Amino acid sequence: MKISAIVTLKKDVLDPQGKVVHQALNGMGFSSVKEVRQGKYFEIEIDENDKKKAEEKAEDMCKKLLANLVIEDYKIIGSQ
Amino acid sequence: MKISAIVTLKKDVLDPQGKVVHQALNGMGFSSVKEVRQGKYFEIEIDENDKKKAEEKAEDMCKKLLANLVIEDYKIIGSQ
Repeated sequence: MKISAIVTLKKDVLDPQGKVVHQALNGMGFSSVKEVRQGKYFEIEIDENDKKKAEEKAEDMCKKLLANLVIEDYKIIGSQ
Repeated sequence: MKISAIVTLKKDVLDPQGKVVHQALNGMGFSSVKEVRQGKYFEIEIDENDKKKAEEKAEDMCKKLLANLVIEDYKIIGSQ
C-alpha cells in the first residue's frame, strides 16, 4: 500500500523558502500570487494491505521522524 | 483561492533523499517500509476566484518554475 503524506510548516512559522518562490513568481509576471508556502511530500510504500493500519503506521512515522512537531504539521493525504 | 501542488521525481530518477529516509525508518523498527520517495509540496494563494483559472495558473507556474520537467513531474492535488 502506498501512503502519501505532506509535512508543512505551522502557520505562524516563517517560510523563507516559500517567500523566495513567491518573489520569483511575481518577478516572472505571476502578479496574482499572494503567498507561497513550501513543504515536503512523502510517498511511503508499506507492506500492509489494511488501509487503516497502513495509515496509522505512516502517521507514526510522521510523528517520530518525518515531521518536527514543534514547528511542523503533517497530514496523510492519500493511500492506494 | 489556495492551490496545492506536488512536485515529485520521475519514476526512473534516483531519489537519494528518499533512500536515506527509508533506511532511517528501517533502522527505527519500521521494517514493513518498502520504499520512500520524497518530493516538494507547494501551497499557492492566488488572487483568483475561478477554480479552473486558478488551477491553470498554478499549472503554468509548475511548468515554468516549480518543476524541472526533465526529471520531475508535477500534480495539482487540490484547491480551496
